[in-house]
Amino acid sequence: MTSTVRVELGDRSYPIVIGPGLLDSPRHYEPWLRGRQAVLVASATVSGLHGPGVERALQPSCSRYLRIVVPDGEAQKCWETLDRLHGELIAWGADRRTVLLALGGGVIGDLVGFAAATFQRGVDFIQIPTTLLAQVDSSVGGKTAINHALGKNLIGAFHQPIAVLSDTETLNTLPDRELAAGLAEVIKYGIIHDSAFFAWMEAHLHELLRRDAAALTFAIRRSCEIKAEIVAQDEREHGRRALLNLGHTFGHAIESLTGYGAWLHGEAVAAGTVLASTLAHRMGRLSSDDLGRITRLLEQAGLPVRPPSLPLDGWLTAMGRDKKNEGGRITLILPEGIGAASVNREVPANTLEALLSGR
Amino acid sequence: MTSTVRVELGDRSYPIVIGPGLLDSPRHYEPWLRGRQAVLVASATVSGLHGPGVERALQPSCSRYLRIVVPDGEAQKCWETLDRLHGELIAWGADRRTVLLALGGGVIGDLVGFAAATFQRGVDFIQIPTTLLAQVDSSVGGKTAINHALGKNLIGAFHQPIAVLSDTETLNTLPDRELAAGLAEVIKYGIIHDSAFFAWMEAHLHELLRRDAAALTFAIRRSCEIKAEIVAQDEREHGRRALLNLGHTFGHAIESLTGYGAWLHGEAVAAGTVLASTLAHRMGRLSSDDLGRITRLLEQAGLPVRPPSLPLDGWLTAMGRDKKNEGGRITLILPEGIGAASVNREVPANTLEALLSGR
Repeated sequence: MTSTVRVELGDRSYPIVIGPGLLDSPRHYEPWLRGRQAVLVASATVSGLHGPGVERALQPSCSRYLRIVVPDGEAQKCWETLDRLHGELIAWGADRRTVLLALGGGVIGDLVGFAAATFQRGVDFIQIPTTLLAQVDSSVGGKTAINHALGKNLIGAFHQPIAVLSDTETLNTLPDRELAAGLAEVIKYGIIHDSAFFAWMEAHLHELLRRDAAALTFAIRRSCEIKAEIVAQDEREHGRRALLNLGHTFGHAIESLTGYGAWLHGEAVAAGTVLASTLAHRMGRLSSDDLGRITRLLEQAGLPVRPPSLPLDGWLTAMGRDKKNEGGRITLILPEGIGAASVNREVPANTLEALLSGR
Repeated sequence: MTSTVRVELGDRSYPIVIGPGLLDSPRHYEPWLRGRQAVLVASATVSGLHGPGVERALQPSCSRYLRIVVPDGEAQKCWETLDRLHGELIAWGADRRTVLLALGGGVIGDLVGFAAATFQRGVDFIQIPTTLLAQVDSSVGGKTAINHALGKNLIGAFHQPIAVLSDTETLNTLPDRELAAGLAEVIKYGIIHDSAFFAWMEAHLHELLRRDAAALTFAIRRSCEIKAEIVAQDEREHGRRALLNLGHTFGHAIESLTGYGAWLHGEAVAAGTVLASTLAHRMGRLSSDDLGRITRLLEQAGLPVRPPSLPLDGWLTAMGRDKKNEGGRITLILPEGIGAASVNREVPANTLEALLSGR
């Protein structure tokens, strides 16, 4: 039941292997680690759950092995933790052929990916995402980052993994709230690119919520395919790739203004997607029927569809820092029906302000 | 008298413009900055000397402008300064189309280049190197880096500038010791790649030392051409590019063990080049005549040709951290005559230890 999505990026292409029971299987590590040094970096909780299994599976392949455990939480995506990782790699004797393995959710993927991007100007890394969000989002596209005190993900690099292992069994221990947060991104792929996939989600949401393995595998696979297709067209996010950020400009502002961690990323994206869809509706680009379907599916997935109450100037300042902006102009992704979206730099200020003021 | 070397790296190709009086001339900035935001980052001393001229020249082109001054010194190549730069960029409203300009020596080029590589996952930058070392070395190849407490340049990225402006007039205010340090790298290019250029240096060293503009322009141009040719063949330093590190494994160890700053980088490279040449001679790969010519030219340039007295275990630990190493093995570049060099992973331990023990 293992299936593979190949992300096509020339000499930076890599496979995403999806299925149950991958982590414990030596054959998924051997081609990448043969005779090389390997450093597993895992978040504390995930290390306890899956660390021993991964270790047993990878140790036969590599020449030397180190495990580094990072405390749980978004706060670890910072210079201090990155500097500590680099220090441990240097002290241990890691070199340019050493492979880093990131075992955990999006925080670990972003942090270890950026550590790999910047250690000795770039070493290989393998992602082993253990949340639905990381499996459908950060596993494709090579975005790595840490946070700056002034904003999320503002410091980072594009650095592709050499392989991704998405083990669906890791989702069995994922809290409901985090499963729902991952579904926000899955639903997003349907909205921006694939109306049939959106309709499939409407029909199969219950199976996803009860963690049916086949339904999850399909949803992860289709999400990765859509993201891989968009990223292959625009690796460095100069154009089309920005569509993947539907709901994210609003979402990042929510995360930033409520203090990172209060809202999960996927929860903020869900509320942000409804805001973007409402804006698109008011601008005459999205029917009220489609706005209703989007809102309903997110709500049925257990996600918030209304933003917290925040002051207008807070919204505008936080959104003004978004990486997609150019020349001081706020850039927003808006759905155009279900299955298509567009990049907008010309949203009327009063329409946006009315929306953010709850009017 | 302005001349241009083009570094060919596909869609990351860029020009190096070399000559007197470039900094004050708006036409060298206009093609790159037109309508974009520009942030000039300069080291304190250089900012005082050249900042106003650069500012006057670039301001007509850009839409908005900010100058950031960084204190002098290698100590600035650290997370703390990088984080401060990123913070100032964010607070000012820099976006993905903002261009950073690095005005100063190698420290500023490495630091600002890495800031550009990691800000919002990569923005454009222009190098304006004001030391001979930076003009002949860091202006080609896209290496950017900061230091880690455990070693020099261990954290960084490959990130090519969009243009380099090497103004030979900036060398008029360069201290003699720093001019000599730059010559160490110029001499290196002759040793590893071009015996005729080496012979030209032997004949024209006096002109370089008295800062004859035509001689300097030729030396910078030829150095950049050689480096560009090697880098174009091996952008990510998987093979041939390592030749550029002749003398650097020893040199980095000297800089690290004496405390960064006591020896200038070029001085450490000069002593390291003599060590590598001596080793090559003892291994039967370099004639005593060629060893003599290399040592003499470096000495006549005013450079140290003997390392400081350091304990053997210190040497070996510091050299064991070099980025070129693979699988725990020390990698050295050794000259094979004048005009050619090779990568060596098989230097006999006792030969190396005898050399480092001063025997």
